[in-house]
Amino acid sequence: MAMLLESMMRHAIRRGSLDVITHDGKRFRTGDGTGPDLAIRFTDAAAQRALLRNPDLALGELYMLGRLVVEDGSVADVLDLMLGNLHGRPYPAASRARARVRKLVRQWRQMNRGARSRRNVAHHYDLDRRLYDLFLDADRQYSCAYFEHPGQSLDDAQMAKKRHITAKLAVEPGHRVLDIGCGWGGLGLYLAEQAGADVTGITLSEEQLAIARGRAQERHLDRHVDFRLEDYRNTRGNFDRIVSVGMFEHVGVGFYETYFQQSARLLAPDGVMLMHTIGRIDGPGSNNPWVEKYIFPGGYIPAMSEITASIERSGLIVTDVEVLRLHYAETLKAWRERFMARREEAAALYDEAFVRMWEFYLAGSEASFRCGDIVVFQVQLAKRIETLPITRGYIAEREQDLRRREAVPLRLAGE
Amino acid sequence: MAMLLESMMRHAIRRGSLDVITHDGKRFRTGDGTGPDLAIRFTDAAAQRALLRNPDLALGELYMLGRLVVEDGSVADVLDLMLGNLHGRPYPAASRARARVRKLVRQWRQMNRGARSRRNVAHHYDLDRRLYDLFLDADRQYSCAYFEHPGQSLDDAQMAKKRHITAKLAVEPGHRVLDIGCGWGGLGLYLAEQAGADVTGITLSEEQLAIARGRAQERHLDRHVDFRLEDYRNTRGNFDRIVSVGMFEHVGVGFYETYFQQSARLLAPDGVMLMHTIGRIDGPGSNNPWVEKYIFPGGYIPAMSEITASIERSGLIVTDVEVLRLHYAETLKAWRERFMARREEAAALYDEAFVRMWEFYLAGSEASFRCGDIVVFQVQLAKRIETLPITRGYIAEREQDLRRREAVPLRLAGE
Repeated sequence: MAMLLESMMRHAIRRGSLDVITHDGKRFRTGDGTGPDLAIRFTDAAAQRALLRNPDLALGELYMLGRLVVEDGSVADVLDLMLGNLHGRPYPAASRARARVRKLVRQWRQMNRGARSRRNVAHHYDLDRRLYDLFLDADRQYSCAYFEHPGQSLDDAQMAKKRHITAKLAVEPGHRVLDIGCGWGGLGLYLAEQAGADVTGITLSEEQLAIARGRAQERHLDRHVDFRLEDYRNTRGNFDRIVSVGMFEHVGVGFYETYFQQSARLLAPDGVMLMHTIGRIDGPGSNNPWVEKYIFPGGYIPAMSEITASIERSGLIVTDVEVLRLHYAETLKAWRERFMARREEAAALYDEAFVRMWEFYLAGSEASFRCGDIVVFQVQLAKRIETLPITRGYIAEREQDLRRREAVPLRLAGE
Repeated sequence: MAMLLESMMRHAIRRGSLDVITHDGKRFRTGDGTGPDLAIRFTDAAAQRALLRNPDLALGELYMLGRLVVEDGSVADVLDLMLGNLHGRPYPAASRARARVRKLVRQWRQMNRGARSRRNVAHHYDLDRRLYDLFLDADRQYSCAYFEHPGQSLDDAQMAKKRHITAKLAVEPGHRVLDIGCGWGGLGLYLAEQAGADVTGITLSEEQLAIARGRAQERHLDRHVDFRLEDYRNTRGNFDRIVSVGMFEHVGVGFYETYFQQSARLLAPDGVMLMHTIGRIDGPGSNNPWVEKYIFPGGYIPAMSEITASIERSGLIVTDVEVLRLHYAETLKAWRERFMARREEAAALYDEAFVRMWEFYLAGSEASFRCGDIVVFQVQLAKRIETLPITRGYIAEREQDLRRREAVPLRLAGE
């Protein structure tokens, strides 16, 4: 069994190096001996067996439970090494039959009808609000920031993200904007304050809703921002702009057409939509089972071909696709560093296993973005070919305008 | 039969108005009576029957043959009216079986292996060089221009296109650049002259090759630019950059994976590719039969979902997608106006039927872009996530640099 483990680990690590200490104290080195010293240790034989049986699920579980211990380096370093080695291997061309079966399984797992969607959302977003305070920026932006230059702070990069999205939406004062998956309300408040929009933000998380509403009241924006507990499938009305950031990952492949058709119904004829989602680069695939079980039940990271196929059937037109590479790796790095600096507080809120789970989630996600398996797609959509300017120059111009506006005092309520 | 024609025309034209004069002199008005006065006339009863039987093919054929005559307005106005009416109707959700059959037919028609590709290319691009002189810009750019501002001249907008593409490729001096489908060589010459690249340009048109080579010699660039008669599937080597403008439309759906896999093979690990193609917005479809028969045999306009699905299997990463809307409508308008101003010369080269065919092709294409059925996709690709800057700012910066460089005298041969 130890031989099997050694063979598996040697297969997994070719470049860089990782020492493995088995439960009975034996030690072997994998990889080519380059890179920093990293070592992991198994506390028991059953842990080694579990990793062999189902590595994708067990790696995270064993780390959470403290049965796989990182002795030298951090779990982030280990995951970066492992995913870096995995990446760049030839993509296995799945047979059509296998691909079909995989698609069915995926659709079943992601049957995110109303009640299940709410349960899935509660699993993650109804966690104690103090947890999110430990690692997010001051505005609680729980999605990929936009780093305009190296070394930009997380808070500035999250502000830049809101500005970039607002610019791409070409929002005008008085526009009715729908924010599908509004989170704690930061983007909605920005759209109202800086662009003069009338915002409807919808979420399925009661925790998020309570905080978002509280913030709108505090900032005297409740006449311009309406946060609601609502499933996007139940929304009615007509909106000049629709924005949806980090929500599409929860829609489920079986509902992509529903999502875009519903968006097309809600969008005014001259409307513009911006959909911001994590995306996979190597085509339709399946979820990581550990992430599915512990972090995002019902979630799925879409390929561009899956997104565009659904859009083409909706009556919407893709007018621009920006592919944000590495921005999320930087965001997750910042989150992890902030979280680890306050890990005692997290442990006091939950327990050590939770802290390791969260660390593993942040580190694993960062490694996936770093090695280029996943990226972020910002897909801009319209209904009419002539809705937006024909070159992209307006985006930078509007960002410049917004930057100036951010510098002056905010309007009072009712203004 | 006249009743059938009237019913068909009334169904086709709801907004705007078009008078129809039948072969026996009867006249009826279709549409809602708004818009400019337009009238068409059939010269014989068989022409009316042909249109009823197969409107997509017959409309162009009858116009070519002078059996459908435009009495008031131009054929461009009539096509704009017809396509504008067609557009915006609900997209019929094809059954899976029908979609599969359509896909098979499409693949068969586009079995563009070597010999057939050469024949298809010769059909269009080996036409008399004097024909293209009648309507293209001075640099013979036979693809969508990039209009930076309204009213920009065709020549300036074609220069802006070359600059825009060069900027997106992030070309450095000494880079080996492969231009797949190099046409008459304009882009390759620009890349060598303005960006200092060593260019290999391939085409399947002997006419294009001869002109491209002549231009390279005239400009003393033959040490830096190598134009060849070569199928992209036969190209060998390793290139820092690959560019392909207006060629993907001739690849054929059955060869999309071949195309991107071959590109991945030819591209250096830190390489960048830019693929510029006409695209359809409403998903996989079929060719217009008239265009297929008279203008571009073996051609096909791809949907974004078709392109991205093939890229995902190739090992390349989509790093950016710009959707150029209306730029090609403006380009085609300019081409048609130039062509019509010199229609006597075209008729002297060929005959009246050819001139009407060409007019119909330019006018029909413009109307398709104008109503938003088709657009242009500029798809930027890389192999590594970290190859390009993480924001788009470099594109405008490089355009600015290129603009400055264009203003100074060109280097001498051998410099």
